Amino acid sequence: MKISEIDIRLCRHHSGMTGGELRDGQGSELEFLVITCKTDEGLSASSFGYAGRGARPAGEIAATSLKPFFLGRDPLYREKNWQDFRVSDRWWHLTPIYSFGPFDVACWLLSAQAAGQPLYKYLGAYRDEVPVYASSLVLPQPADYAEQALAVKAAGWAGYKLHPPGDYAFDLEAHRLVREAVGPEFTLMSDPVAAYTTEQALRMGRELERLDYHWFEEPLADENFHGLRELTRVLDIPIAGAEVLAKRPYSMAECIASRVVDIVRADVSWGGGVTAVMKSAHLADAFGVQCEIHTAIYHPLELVNLHCAAAIKNSEFFELLWPTDYFDFGLAQPLVIENGKAQLPQGPGLGAELDWDLIEDATFDVL
Amino acid sequence: MKISEIDIRLCRHHSGMTGGELRDGQGSELEFLVITCKTDEGLSASSFGYAGRGARPAGEIAATSLKPFFLGRDPLYREKNWQDFRVSDRWWHLTPIYSFGPFDVACWLLSAQAAGQPLYKYLGAYRDEVPVYASSLVLPQPADYAEQALAVKAAGWAGYKLHPPGDYAFDLEAHRLVREAVGPEFTLMSDPVAAYTTEQALRMGRELERLDYHWFEEPLADENFHGLRELTRVLDIPIAGAEVLAKRPYSMAECIASRVVDIVRADVSWGGGVTAVMKSAHLADAFGVQCEIHTAIYHPLELVNLHCAAAIKNSEFFELLWPTDYFDFGLAQPLVIENGKAQLPQGPGLGAELDWDLIEDATFDVL
Repeated sequence: MKISEIDIRLCRHHSGMTGGELRDGQGSELEFLVITCKTDEGLSASSFGYAGRGARPAGEIAATSLKPFFLGRDPLYREKNWQDFRVSDRWWHLTPIYSFGPFDVACWLLSAQAAGQPLYKYLGAYRDEVPVYASSLVLPQPADYAEQALAVKAAGWAGYKLHPPGDYAFDLEAHRLVREAVGPEFTLMSDPVAAYTTEQALRMGRELERLDYHWFEEPLADENFHGLRELTRVLDIPIAGAEVLAKRPYSMAECIASRVVDIVRADVSWGGGVTAVMKSAHLADAFGVQCEIHTAIYHPLELVNLHCAAAIKNSEFFELLWPTDYFDFGLAQPLVIENGKAQLPQGPGLGAELDWDLIEDATFDVL
Repeated sequence: MKISEIDIRLCRHHSGMTGGELRDGQGSELEFLVITCKTDEGLSASSFGYAGRGARPAGEIAATSLKPFFLGRDPLYREKNWQDFRVSDRWWHLTPIYSFGPFDVACWLLSAQAAGQPLYKYLGAYRDEVPVYASSLVLPQPADYAEQALAVKAAGWAGYKLHPPGDYAFDLEAHRLVREAVGPEFTLMSDPVAAYTTEQALRMGRELERLDYHWFEEPLADENFHGLRELTRVLDIPIAGAEVLAKRPYSMAECIASRVVDIVRADVSWGGGVTAVMKSAHLADAFGVQCEIHTAIYHPLELVNLHCAAAIKNSEFFELLWPTDYFDFGLAQPLVIENGKAQLPQGPGLGAELDWDLIEDATFDVL
């Protein structure tokens, strides 16, 4: 089986998300790619591709560095493709962390389709449903988080994670208001996205311990190994991180073996596709470490994440951004969540159809 | 002073380089960007920007993620710009390692121009000339390296570094033939660009010690901290690395403090501009570690590298790729090398004019 044709669609969708909901204040139109790989045997698989700040640059990278690489390759030779691309990328492509993922996803989907199995069973299933938690964007006021957490709890989901804006006093108030609102039993996490000094992070970690938060994510930048390792050593609350580390799983080995963080993060979009997620999760598992699956933003990619989460034991949750209606486009049928658990579809490959009418409308160029 | 206008030129230059001279065998047309920042006070500075595998994707990233960020900013507020971009980049830009550099370079050039000083004196000069060594591309036969090394020695340069293809037997023969050709006194280094297993790297390191090579560079991938640390511990020959690590200098702190490598690498193109090079070099110096300046490929960027090398003590050499005529375009006057030492120009800023006729001819789009 050879990949004989690759289309890269540059797409723009008005999600309703505002610039203020990301911390740098710049607007985001939530652009994305749809990458379709067809084989000489008549199979076809499509993956959404990350392009959060522009489908044009993400698409041009895909067209210049990835499409020529994958054309003519066998999607079943996923490890060969992975290893060869490491060499190719080092020889002056130097692609960003999100470029390889969707091509690897397409190869996995083609492989699972050819086998007539849903991806998570092709990977080797561990379970058929995964508890789902909601992740906020950045909200204007501390009380807004409490209101949102109540809505998530009312929906029956398994937990809620704040992305506070990174102002210590604001964030602490938000953490307290959310815990007060949802009561002592509901699972809560916090992810300030590298906003604190080490000293602030230590103080906030102690507050989160008192408020019984489940984990404390990316209190410092992923690349600050020394600071994170010190927090991990001192605090009881688990420190989660590594979702924007380049070159995973290789870079993650140091994080795990020298306990830079307690919990590592992986996703199919920023982390190198299904191949990297499975390597990362298995690496973590060998050390008895949790590998919590990180949101891939767009629901068609979240579904690929879900397949991975269902094929490993060491991810407690499946993550979705909230409000979901910013990100739930692109699938012909929405993700199925029952009793707070995302359900795995049973069709071959992705197990769900893409919403091609929406994709056609969103496409502004094809490379 | 505010940046009021930014032009991003997408350029293509036929360098004569072939795909075989990079290890993945894909051709490279040696594309590049020229980024021009003009201020409201009438100053203008231009930096070449890396685009080794395509000016279109590199240019679209620059136009989408960097140009809107820098427009309206004060080039003298370099630290503010650096810190703000860290936050912005984390919030979904996720730019590759080469995107920020040329904008930072332009800010430094504007600042030094405004001060009427050559960049290396604006940074704080340490010296007025820096010994230069030649770096090979990947050559067809072991004997080709010996021939090239003799040419470099005949030119009076300070040393020669092989980039062998990564086949152990081929590489070892090349290392031996080069040492035989140039005699026992000439400085030699080897950089197989992450081609070996840890075991091969250890064996090759011992061979290079016997052949009296000066350092052994990137024997394993930069992100393989455990493997590199073991080589660094066991081998006497200095291990150099870190030139493709993302998020320097932060990621480099772990490399230095836990001795992943003996010698770190930095450059203004892949490493985050002048700001990152100076931070990296000073970090290394605090630990008594050398920070060897890594080629920036195009000579107008090499000249910025040279200014940095002249402002620090802990870089022994200035690196240029060989043959130089693949890469020496873009400056109105060539880099001045006397007695094996690159000479610092004395004009303000870059201290040299760009070759605008060549740049005009090479430009195929402006963003």
